[in-house]
Amino acid sequence: MEKPYILISNDDGIAARGLNFLVETLRPHADLLVVAPDGPRSGMSMSITSRDPLRYSKVEETEGLTRYKTSGTPADCIKMAVNRFITRRPDLIIGGINHGDNSSVNAHYSGTMGVAIEGALQGYPSVAFSLCNIHPDADFTPMAPYLVDLTFKAIAMGIPAMTCLNINFPDGGHYNGVKVCRMANSRWVNEIVACRHPHGGEYFWLGGECEELEPEAEDTDRWALAHGYVAITPTTLDVTAYGLMDVMRSLL
Amino acid sequence: MEKPYILISNDDGIAARGLNFLVETLRPHADLLVVAPDGPRSGMSMSITSRDPLRYSKVEETEGLTRYKTSGTPADCIKMAVNRFITRRPDLIIGGINHGDNSSVNAHYSGTMGVAIEGALQGYPSVAFSLCNIHPDADFTPMAPYLVDLTFKAIAMGIPAMTCLNINFPDGGHYNGVKVCRMANSRWVNEIVACRHPHGGEYFWLGGECEELEPEAEDTDRWALAHGYVAITPTTLDVTAYGLMDVMRSLL
Repeated sequence: MEKPYILISNDDGIAARGLNFLVETLRPHADLLVVAPDGPRSGMSMSITSRDPLRYSKVEETEGLTRYKTSGTPADCIKMAVNRFITRRPDLIIGGINHGDNSSVNAHYSGTMGVAIEGALQGYPSVAFSLCNIHPDADFTPMAPYLVDLTFKAIAMGIPAMTCLNINFPDGGHYNGVKVCRMANSRWVNEIVACRHPHGGEYFWLGGECEELEPEAEDTDRWALAHGYVAITPTTLDVTAYGLMDVMRSLL
Repeated sequence: MEKPYILISNDDGIAARGLNFLVETLRPHADLLVVAPDGPRSGMSMSITSRDPLRYSKVEETEGLTRYKTSGTPADCIKMAVNRFITRRPDLIIGGINHGDNSSVNAHYSGTMGVAIEGALQGYPSVAFSLCNIHPDADFTPMAPYLVDLTFKAIAMGIPAMTCLNINFPDGGHYNGVKVCRMANSRWVNEIVACRHPHGGEYFWLGGECEELEPEAEDTDRWALAHGYVAITPTTLDVTAYGLMDVMRSLL
């Protein structure tokens, strides 16, 4: 029987440990196509490259594993892959493993979720894997059995059109289980950090803290992660606020 | 009575005609703070700048109108504005007017929607205005009465937390009315356009066509635009696919 064919990208770039751990973990079980940015593209969300040309190069072609790097964003990588590089229909598209937490509102900024959302927009079952540890040398080892299990479940169950899965792993290496969650509401505050250049003049970094807006709610991804569970947040690409439509009609 | 205080940004940059038409249209009715990118940032979605420092400069301060330009993305502009530039709580945050169609799946890539989504994440009522004409010299004049009316309705009605409005205007200058819509399902195809460099070697542009996947459905933003209506798509920032949660629990 043919192995599943899985397309992998990320936002930390082709050299990132998280991506390469995912590749090594899935390699015995699947034929892999990796199409990843040639450097870090964190926080790029669903960004696409419209004003610059895109370039790519093939960096590996071995039995069951082909890798390309591109000059583009995570979403660009998926567009290039499905238009030019795939050799058959992928059974799954995976973003990750991201170095850092993509739960709650972070999903909106995440290039790893950009991979999964673009994959789903292109019509393929898609998931994002993230570990809540932003360190470049984070230890991904304990995730391995969950990655294989969840990858094959995602393929078997067939993720519906216009949805994808946002899967976050708590840091620490011990998991109490897997929980299906909703996205927690939270808010970034104090985000602009001012610094002074040695030659004078101010510049700014994005920083800040993420404030929980519903820390008591037990059905959120944030709660699951805080309590040691792997959090699966099924995510819709149809972002219509259906509950608001009639209200708005009556007010216009 | 104090005029409303409105924060405006966009993704076409501080010099764009759409932004400046919006400013001139709303200026008699509101105190305006413009914080916009210093150049084009189309297709940047909810991208934030994590690896480069941000800078800004004030380019205008007159009665009822202050303008800043920044080196950041549309979402960065809103973060800088609410953390550093606002002088009181904005009554509304507006992205636009975008040069180009942000209906249907385009909303996922749109930096103009990035403004509205970031505005809503920061806790403010937020809307995005777009005209379905990508030309830099597009004629925005016919939109003027609708812009004023919809701006004041958005302020009066109070857009609920974790939602924003994606408002698209058809091209052509005549409107049959305003429709509250859901986001149409569509798909970009043939997106990678190969070109040859004069010195040899291939490079690529993002291009392609947007295929309608449900052209007959009369409740979508695409249908409304194709039939001459201003399309208002209420948009949720809680992207949980609630309908999928129980299914997923039973399959895991």
